[in-house]
Amino acid sequence: MIKVGIIGIGRIGRIHGESIVRFVKGAEVKAIADNFIDVNGKEWAHSLGIKNIYTDYKKLLLDEEIDAVMICSPTETHSRLSIESIAARKHVFCEKPVDLDVFKINSVREALKGTNLKYQVGFMRRFDHNFKSIKNAISSGKIGSQRILKLTSRDPAPPSLAYLEKSGGLFLDMTIHDFDAIRFLSGSEVIEVFAQGAVMTTPSIKEVGDIDTGVVILKLSNGATAIVDNCRQTAYGYDQRAEVFGERGCVAIDNDTFSSSMLSDSNGVHLEKPLDFFLERYKNAYIEEIHSFIHSIESGDNPEVSVEDGLEAVMISLSAQKSLKENRPVKIEEVRKEFKC
Amino acid sequence: MIKVGIIGIGRIGRIHGESIVRFVKGAEVKAIADNFIDVNGKEWAHSLGIKNIYTDYKKLLLDEEIDAVMICSPTETHSRLSIESIAARKHVFCEKPVDLDVFKINSVREALKGTNLKYQVGFMRRFDHNFKSIKNAISSGKIGSQRILKLTSRDPAPPSLAYLEKSGGLFLDMTIHDFDAIRFLSGSEVIEVFAQGAVMTTPSIKEVGDIDTGVVILKLSNGATAIVDNCRQTAYGYDQRAEVFGERGCVAIDNDTFSSSMLSDSNGVHLEKPLDFFLERYKNAYIEEIHSFIHSIESGDNPEVSVEDGLEAVMISLSAQKSLKENRPVKIEEVRKEFKC
Amino acid sequence: MIKVGIIGIGRIGRIHGESIVRFVKGAEVKAIADNFIDVNGKEWAHSLGIKNIYTDYKKLLLDEEIDAVMICSPTETHSRLSIESIAARKHVFCEKPVDLDVFKINSVREALKGTNLKYQVGFMRRFDHNFKSIKNAISSGKIGSQRILKLTSRDPAPPSLAYLEKSGGLFLDMTIHDFDAIRFLSGSEVIEVFAQGAVMTTPSIKEVGDIDTGVVILKLSNGATAIVDNCRQTAYGYDQRAEVFGERGCVAIDNDTFSSSMLSDSNGVHLEKPLDFFLERYKNAYIEEIHSFIHSIESGDNPEVSVEDGLEAVMISLSAQKSLKENRPVKIEEVRKEFKC
Amino acid sequence: MIKVGIIGIGRIGRIHGESIVRFVKGAEVKAIADNFIDVNGKEWAHSLGIKNIYTDYKKLLLDEEIDAVMICSPTETHSRLSIESIAARKHVFCEKPVDLDVFKINSVREALKGTNLKYQVGFMRRFDHNFKSIKNAISSGKIGSQRILKLTSRDPAPPSLAYLEKSGGLFLDMTIHDFDAIRFLSGSEVIEVFAQGAVMTTPSIKEVGDIDTGVVILKLSNGATAIVDNCRQTAYGYDQRAEVFGERGCVAIDNDTFSSSMLSDSNGVHLEKPLDFFLERYKNAYIEEIHSFIHSIESGDNPEVSVEDGLEAVMISLSAQKSLKENRPVKIEEVRKEFKC
Repeated sequence: MIKVGIIGIGRIGRIHGESIVRFVKGAEVKAIADNFIDVNGKEWAHSLGIKNIYTDYKKLLLDEEIDAVMICSPTETHSRLSIESIAARKHVFCEKPVDLDVFKINSVREALKGTNLKYQVGFMRRFDHNFKSIKNAISSGKIGSQRILKLTSRDPAPPSLAYLEKSGGLFLDMTIHDFDAIRFLSGSEVIEVFAQGAVMTTPSIKEVGDIDTGVVILKLSNGATAIVDNCRQTAYGYDQRAEVFGERGCVAIDNDTFSSSMLSDSNGVHLEKPLDFFLERYKNAYIEEIHSFIHSIESGDNPEVSVEDGLEAVMISLSAQKSLKENRPVKIEEVRKEFKC
Repeated sequence: MIKVGIIGIGRIGRIHGESIVRFVKGAEVKAIADNFIDVNGKEWAHSLGIKNIYTDYKKLLLDEEIDAVMICSPTETHSRLSIESIAARKHVFCEKPVDLDVFKINSVREALKGTNLKYQVGFMRRFDHNFKSIKNAISSGKIGSQRILKLTSRDPAPPSLAYLEKSGGLFLDMTIHDFDAIRFLSGSEVIEVFAQGAVMTTPSIKEVGDIDTGVVILKLSNGATAIVDNCRQTAYGYDQRAEVFGERGCVAIDNDTFSSSMLSDSNGVHLEKPLDFFLERYKNAYIEEIHSFIHSIESGDNPEVSVEDGLEAVMISLSAQKSLKENRPVKIEEVRKEFKC
Repeated sequence: MIKVGIIGIGRIGRIHGESIVRFVKGAEVKAIADNFIDVNGKEWAHSLGIKNIYTDYKKLLLDEEIDAVMICSPTETHSRLSIESIAARKHVFCEKPVDLDVFKINSVREALKGTNLKYQVGFMRRFDHNFKSIKNAISSGKIGSQRILKLTSRDPAPPSLAYLEKSGGLFLDMTIHDFDAIRFLSGSEVIEVFAQGAVMTTPSIKEVGDIDTGVVILKLSNGATAIVDNCRQTAYGYDQRAEVFGERGCVAIDNDTFSSSMLSDSNGVHLEKPLDFFLERYKNAYIEEIHSFIHSIESGDNPEVSVEDGLEAVMISLSAQKSLKENRPVKIEEVRKEFKC
Repeated sequence: MIKVGIIGIGRIGRIHGESIVRFVKGAEVKAIADNFIDVNGKEWAHSLGIKNIYTDYKKLLLDEEIDAVMICSPTETHSRLSIESIAARKHVFCEKPVDLDVFKINSVREALKGTNLKYQVGFMRRFDHNFKSIKNAISSGKIGSQRILKLTSRDPAPPSLAYLEKSGGLFLDMTIHDFDAIRFLSGSEVIEVFAQGAVMTTPSIKEVGDIDTGVVILKLSNGATAIVDNCRQTAYGYDQRAEVFGERGCVAIDNDTFSSSMLSDSNGVHLEKPLDFFLERYKNAYIEEIHSFIHSIESGDNPEVSVEDGLEAVMISLSAQKSLKENRPVKIEEVRKEFKC
């Protein structure tokens, strides 16, 4: 039985806690830590039968029975908590991004060296039924060699300015999921990006130096081209589509809906809006990624999403930022050199 | 060059005239006859280069150069004009139904005996892209032996009471197309029907002794069961669907739309209503049936829809009427015996 | 905390046990009873933390702490176990059908009289996202007054002959779900049925006196007509569709699939087959019905599916059987009189 | 009655000839000219009742009765024939592109100055039911201010190398339709492009200095970003999709198919491939554009696609070529200055 401690029980920490308690036979949540825990949080923990509730995560790390730590705290703490957890000889599941700073991600990589610890990053789309179905179509040769990949990710509404200020910007906060998905689906590396972006939904986003609408073209090492389009505000909810076009065919995924209901009336034929928002849309993917993390601890297999995957997605995001700023295509290698990694 | 005369240049007569002029290379419209022709009708005929315009159809039948007659006049004239046209040694395309009276249809059959004349009935669905695609799926063995056939035909709005009074009732006027489609798709005969019906859209339809909503179950000679549902009023327009379920699979057709446009907004995802109404929905089928008629004259092949097909559809319609009246399943054979045919 | 005992831990008993443990906060499974329990069954119970494991269900009924019993044993035991559970002052969730014999269902009703016990029947479709979306469309007036309801239920493959022999036949075993769904969706009663059926998939089904393909037309008290078509064998898996057509529009539900994946290749455009089979397709509905059952105990509200609903569905099934045998429409009242209820 | 002469009766010339004869009431084809006309071509002309058949187009231009000329000859003759037709005081419908050379297009513009002649360019997508439905959704405000436009155009198979050598390359031959569609849909001008491209389908295309797969990002004057993806070879046929995402929603069009047939079998659920190829897919658009051209002559209205539209699409295409060559974003203004226009 793998014993897990969760640091941070905000929205995503709770999702992971419930997934383990309900669906992962070989694991249990032994402790949680959250320095802002309140009555509601404690009730939640009790209802799941979680025994140890800490405000100080260090106590959780000191519990020698705990095998694995899930880092679900704010982004700026990810790399530090990762390193401390590794030092405490815990396997780590870390929410994305590992850090906004490549040097700090490299410190995590350094910390992992020579250990047998598993480290998984929270790119849940790799575990999603739709994205997996594309991956399977590619792996089984159904579309032949890849030519064009297209990903659309549009959020229902922008987060708060407070959030945006610490988010690292659209490419590091939102597009990063698409960048990882491109690497996952293509099984190939990104070698060059060209990015465009603008503030089109909420003028105040300009004030924090961010954009809310972005389009990125990526050259892949397998010769294919990928295209991502993102927006922070979408009238019809949460848009999560993808398609991969290859020599022998094209495989595409559409949005999920609550039901398949189709209403025909005097105004037309009406289908439901996409599931909204990520907690609902990726509910099963969140369960599957934890399954996979626990399985890698049990089996000794490599995690399905490594710290290197986490690093690479950040590297592409930074290259996209540079491209946007300088209005020119930027090679990933160029950014990699800046960070000497 | 096959020379055609059209009797009756209402809505459907004009459709056929234009089809011949525009799309049928081996045929021309030499004459039209309509005892209520007006300026507009004459202009229409001139614009198509039709030379002879008669009010009296007998003049058209006297024209020895005319090879074929298209009977597009009101239903009650169909059988009489058919017989006169055959007597004048013309091939005949007759709009459905051939007659509401089985004896009169039999007179047409008698008149045809011993001639080499072609006689085609206007069941245009047999020539429709969607219905043909089901037929092809069945013929090519893709669904294996048939089990259940389902047809949905719903009209946007009921015709006038004046029309309904002469129409023969829902089953003879509207469901007759489904009955023919069942024979066409299944390649099998109907042996028993059970019909239900009600007035649900327009109370005044009761006054003319008709129904506006009907459901019919049909036993086929191949062992399969067919289900038809009809309604005279449909909020979303003209609904024309079908599916055939068999041992190896199921093939279904959906409604056609003007465009594939899909609008996603804050209320949902919206598609277009079906094409509305039959002139628009079956535009190409009307062309194809004339092609086929002219081809059968040229080639000597049997028409794709014979007078026997016309008779059989009426026989099923009459059986459905009897079933509705007596609230019991009725064998077609039972009605056939009444008419000794 | 509602304490539940489960009698019968076959396929469906386990589904319900897992639903309670994982998803129903206010309930726990205190005991199970199964006279054929084996090592595997015990392991399953232990993994869920279920403490009391009996072979004799009477011991379970004697446990005064147990508030509610879920009857998941074979059909022939349902009514007897229901009555014994009621006598032991337990709330009851009983899998469908309550019994094949109307008199026995009436005994259950009698037993319930004067108690405050909740009794829910396992018609899980009422809790399914798709069926609920139709119900909501109807309730909110989106389709106006109902005219035609159509339900398609086709199973991937027939059960064993051994199962079929005890099943009560197609209408009582399979169509019963559609009959309940019609009552649920329409909010109306069935007053007359006409049924057709045949053996089309597996000749040996004839030997046990059953059919494998059925079509039923039903007259409803609201004036609408319902149509059900069923088959025990379906090449493309588990087909579960419905549509309700009314004055203002039509609402339809389609099959669920594992993913929305669409593959375009040189042969066409390919979508996934429906989810197969009921455990997968109705996974969430099984959770929701238990939620609802526990909620009705907690709140005192009536269960969403009553024993009367269970009785009525059996009554319609028996009427359909009679109609099939006698090849004539049968009024439910006629069958009701036979059973004096 | 507008009298039309057609120069060049290859594939597209015949399409236009048939459109006029069959569908355009106010026009007739008085003459055709084709210096390679053969027996088949003459038969075609006779079957449509076209009286004058020339090998030398100059004779056609000398016919004073001819009001309008349709230039359907190879691209390299377009601008010269346009200028000669204008000199002969004929209205002109010219197939796309007007010329590969901006200076020559400018000569056509010069020739038109001071005349009242109508000049329409053959961008048929503007008249397509699907593209029009997007345009209507935008015009009616349904999607609000535009943010991201996406166009996918993929051909079933590349043309011959001989054709490619004279085609001007992917952007001028194929993407030009998307560039015009972007201007049409957005009602906005392109101000900057970034293009990527590669040879991925047919290595020999490299030999003629062309690419077969291209992706272009375009900045529009309304602030929106457009994305085009193209390929010369597509396993599933002819892919013609588009979507426009805006503040209030997103409107998308999908491919057209021969029928709506959906086959469910043990392998999945199968739909038809898209209509293949442009003559079939845009059949009605070709009719509509001629209608529009004739209407503009009759009414004096400006043509719906002007020589300036033709010029602008070429300008964008040349900018895309430059961007591909120099791997950097290129402003249209930059290319415009090269040509001083």
